Amino acid sequence: MSSSRGIDADRVVADLRELAARTSDESGAQRLAWTDTWLDARAFLRELLAELDIEAELDEAGNLWARLEGEDPGADALVLGSHTDSVPDGGWLDGALGVMAAVEVFRAHRGEAPPRSLVLVDWADEEGARFGLSLFGSSAFAGTLDASAAAGLRDAEGRQMREVLASHGVDIDAASRCGARREGLGSYLELHIEQGPVLEAEGVAVAAVAGCQGIERHRFSFRGQAAHAGTTPMAMRRDAGLAAAALTTAIAELPADHGGVATTGELRLEPGISTAVAGVAHLACDLRNPDAGKLEAMLERAQALARECSEAHGCELSAEKIFSIAPTTFDTNLVAAATEAARTETGASFEITSGALHDAASVSRVMPAAMMFCPSRRGISHAKEEDTALADLRLAIECFGTLAREVVTG
Amino acid sequence: MSSSRGIDADRVVADLRELAARTSDESGAQRLAWTDTWLDARAFLRELLAELDIEAELDEAGNLWARLEGEDPGADALVLGSHTDSVPDGGWLDGALGVMAAVEVFRAHRGEAPPRSLVLVDWADEEGARFGLSLFGSSAFAGTLDASAAAGLRDAEGRQMREVLASHGVDIDAASRCGARREGLGSYLELHIEQGPVLEAEGVAVAAVAGCQGIERHRFSFRGQAAHAGTTPMAMRRDAGLAAAALTTAIAELPADHGGVATTGELRLEPGISTAVAGVAHLACDLRNPDAGKLEAMLERAQALARECSEAHGCELSAEKIFSIAPTTFDTNLVAAATEAARTETGASFEITSGALHDAASVSRVMPAAMMFCPSRRGISHAKEEDTALADLRLAIECFGTLAREVVTG
Repeated sequence: MSSSRGIDADRVVADLRELAARTSDESGAQRLAWTDTWLDARAFLRELLAELDIEAELDEAGNLWARLEGEDPGADALVLGSHTDSVPDGGWLDGALGVMAAVEVFRAHRGEAPPRSLVLVDWADEEGARFGLSLFGSSAFAGTLDASAAAGLRDAEGRQMREVLASHGVDIDAASRCGARREGLGSYLELHIEQGPVLEAEGVAVAAVAGCQGIERHRFSFRGQAAHAGTTPMAMRRDAGLAAAALTTAIAELPADHGGVATTGELRLEPGISTAVAGVAHLACDLRNPDAGKLEAMLERAQALARECSEAHGCELSAEKIFSIAPTTFDTNLVAAATEAARTETGASFEITSGALHDAASVSRVMPAAMMFCPSRRGISHAKEEDTALADLRLAIECFGTLAREVVTG
Repeated sequence: MSSSRGIDADRVVADLRELAARTSDESGAQRLAWTDTWLDARAFLRELLAELDIEAELDEAGNLWARLEGEDPGADALVLGSHTDSVPDGGWLDGALGVMAAVEVFRAHRGEAPPRSLVLVDWADEEGARFGLSLFGSSAFAGTLDASAAAGLRDAEGRQMREVLASHGVDIDAASRCGARREGLGSYLELHIEQGPVLEAEGVAVAAVAGCQGIERHRFSFRGQAAHAGTTPMAMRRDAGLAAAALTTAIAELPADHGGVATTGELRLEPGISTAVAGVAHLACDLRNPDAGKLEAMLERAQALARECSEAHGCELSAEKIFSIAPTTFDTNLVAAATEAARTETGASFEITSGALHDAASVSRVMPAAMMFCPSRRGISHAKEEDTALADLRLAIECFGTLAREVVTG
């Protein structure tokens, strides 16, 4: 057992390895929400909790909760959580690390009841990999879920979200009732992998997360005229693909002026064949910035650029919002506590703004929340190659235990 | 009956309308090669030939042949042809016009045997819409088919070309044996729609076609690094989508220097989702030029640009040739005869180089060949909206009849 206040990081790593063995194949983790493999992951989580004589329960949104009673049952509880679901062909740590670390904090407190109660939560469908809607369970909890819009979403096989959730006992229209569980919960902490290359590049093993970038994700559609690649003179073309290419190049320049990041990873051309000028192009732009004003400026500039690119190629432009979320600033006191825990355990401190979305961003709308990150090797996540150096993983788990102890006793 | 030397253009239009009624649905023509609907089209063609007491026969490549014996059976025959197959959701004129016009030439010569024999050919699978290989039947005839490469091609349902052709009685390995039919054939004429906007813009009803542009169709693949859209700083990205966008923009500039046309209608990003930097991008470039030297220069410049774009975004580049064909120059005498026929019937003449590929480009490798074009409304083809003004259609059919009569009696 590690020296760090009863936290056994190796046990957490072993649990994560066991989870991977049970729920992965040769292509990576397959804990896609609302599938049997996800249920297998949760069954393993229930086994671990059962060893502590704790029974887990599900709420109206399919979130899984467990509680370790504290000395003062009337005091607000500290919630520790993350998610067991993964993307298809995902990694062994994304989400699972935070859940298994929370189990270890429970284990560490088994002998001596904590001053306040500890609550563990495994949020349902954080990834949104099946229906395209991220943070399902935590947004239902926070009251920010648009259930009527979500209900009609379909997976790749055409099954509706409403129907699939119903087969798991979740009535999507009633999902937000789980928000009633906010009663008696005081704050929220989540350990997660960075999923990016910054901490590795900085040589940092554990970082406090100051917040999550805001996101504006929009799809721009250019409508020109499909035409024969051989017979249509260049001057007579209305090439939607050229409009999209010009916007792609221009969007990548936005962070130089505004900070943040800008990505155009999804582009579909119609008819999309080598022998035809593209008549239609759909380009998705994902803009992120920790500053709300700068994010808005990025979006306005992107919209203006889309109009310019469309006109330059004789196209008609339409746009749809796919997703947006305002920048999240985590609770100052909790972030400071996370920074202090990292300094205590590693001798260094580092604060990062998350580029990825996390359940903590939902939760922070309704209670003080903060996160801790550990590095991702080569910045890779959402892939079977996702990994963290074992020494960093151990340190992060121990730091998280220290942070939880500080907060629950503070 | 029209005054034009026994050619009844309205009968051809009526036949084309009947063909469309039998082989189209609400989305357009469905005469996809190697399908039942294609066989329906050919059954109608056989009906029309049967009215002339002519029986059609198939060769080893699935090309359909018919012959109207001339006064001198030892003289080289004049071949008239095109193709009955269409793309999915295609138009009523593409290919079918040339075949039905050839039938009408047969009809016009029924009462009086032509000096030399007339041969009609309906080339198999000109479009290549199902397996991606254009000009199957005519390239088998011309000896330019790579049967071993073709055999393994698969359609969208995964069926191999070898297997599908076998179900139509065609042994792909033996298809090129149909080249033996070149014996005794003297020259080839084909009437087709332009499939582009030039003739309409020029106000020309009938044009002689001087040749077909050469084509270099290559796919450039950029391999960078897929990465999280939120967590990966711009400076650490290797964005294959940005490399492809830069090349798309640069390729469109090539015709300004080299003439011809350049098209990038097929682009696939991987993983191709809005929340990930594209790790891989596959961009197909279709370059066409009537001049072989300029076509080569376009290709070399495109390859250099691809390398530059790849390096600028930290990607690895690979390239594959999809298709190439040298520029075709049709037979000078036949082109002159086509020009003269157009001048006789319309009082004007116009010579155009085809941007599209045609069976005549294959045939011209082994015998004198030429084509005639009529305009395409708004330049649209390969779509149900494909059309030609009735007056232009009539004129073109009559001109083609005149041309055939001139050549067969010349």
